[in-house]
Amino acid sequence: MADKRLQRGQATRKAVLSAAADIASAEGLEGLTIGRLSHQVGMSKSGLFAHFGSKRELQLAVVDFVRETFLEKVVTPSREIHKGLPRLYAMEMNWIDYVQNSGLHGGCFFTAAAAEFDGRPGPIRERIAALTRGWRDMLKAEAQKAIELGHLHNEADPALLAFQLHALPQQANWAYQLLGEQNAFDHARASTQQLLRHLATPEGLRRTKERRTLSARALVR
Amino acid sequence: MADKRLQRGQATRKAVLSAAADIASAEGLEGLTIGRLSHQVGMSKSGLFAHFGSKRELQLAVVDFVRETFLEKVVTPSREIHKGLPRLYAMEMNWIDYVQNSGLHGGCFFTAAAAEFDGRPGPIRERIAALTRGWRDMLKAEAQKAIELGHLHNEADPALLAFQLHALPQQANWAYQLLGEQNAFDHARASTQQLLRHLATPEGLRRTKERRTLSARALVR
Repeated sequence: MADKRLQRGQATRKAVLSAAADIASAEGLEGLTIGRLSHQVGMSKSGLFAHFGSKRELQLAVVDFVRETFLEKVVTPSREIHKGLPRLYAMEMNWIDYVQNSGLHGGCFFTAAAAEFDGRPGPIRERIAALTRGWRDMLKAEAQKAIELGHLHNEADPALLAFQLHALPQQANWAYQLLGEQNAFDHARASTQQLLRHLATPEGLRRTKERRTLSARALVR
Repeated sequence: MADKRLQRGQATRKAVLSAAADIASAEGLEGLTIGRLSHQVGMSKSGLFAHFGSKRELQLAVVDFVRETFLEKVVTPSREIHKGLPRLYAMEMNWIDYVQNSGLHGGCFFTAAAAEFDGRPGPIRERIAALTRGWRDMLKAEAQKAIELGHLHNEADPALLAFQLHALPQQANWAYQLLGEQNAFDHARASTQQLLRHLATPEGLRRTKERRTLSARALVR
């Protein structure tokens, strides 16, 4: 019975954080007040305060909640893909899929939060910087691995490639969220393919073509 | 004497809008209140109300002010450069320089405003969408022109190229503003060169190498 209460409590927390992430994606983390959230989820303000303590705690809980979702949808599945170029390609494509299908009506949470907090020092800014830098550095490390494995040409620059790959889903998010362009995510996918195809070795292309790893998306034409 | 008063009024307006753009770049256009601005520029609230009428009018005036600066620093100088690839390259490089040297302590105004307003319907959102779409479409039109002039290969896709070019300065803005990475703008420049070099014809490269057009920045190695 204590277990059931715990489970119910966790399910409630997850539902509340999901609603909070949705609000924050569109109106910003600073627009996410306990009062606004209370209205949205139909829970009392005092109940929400009991859960989260303060607006700042709520904001940090939302950041961690979106981080968990990102790990689950983007990072973890890519770990099952062959190291090097196949995994780098999967990381980027999973990310594009995730931004397109996040279900958050304001689009990419971290893009919005980065723009909102880059000029506001404090714990939220530090958390967002650490998480987004960490992901960009994972792309860079996988690009480095792809060079070592002979999947990418030696002249490829891992830092530059990570910069370019990191730019594409955010650009798609902008074009879709602000301009409503339906083809934005396909532009990000096509750009990824163009970029990686240009730097790939025959071995890298062969690896990435293997049905086992990326059946639905051929990197090569 | 009326002329002098007018000039003084215009100079004051420009100084106020410049301070307002600086605040909005870091704290968002919604954080730009008449009270906040009054504190920053040392003018009375009633004086600012006399100038701008309302917060909404002030926000729109700031958007138009930054648009003017963008035209002056990025668009107008590129009009002096040879059409096609040289001009496309100049547009992108002027833009990167502008974002790097805007003097706004929150970095790129339009990147911040797009993220802030993409989920907030209304006149500000419409203005920002029209301006940023307009600039992206200018990049696309110049890419199309570069293909017609034989500066870029026929298989280049103007819409895709504009998508990619539009992504780079915003990515640099993120890496610099949130992560403090000094090399972010050089990454954007190197990415631009890599991208255009890959799609350029020998004629396009020759045109873009001409000292007359782009002396300090060779597109070719």
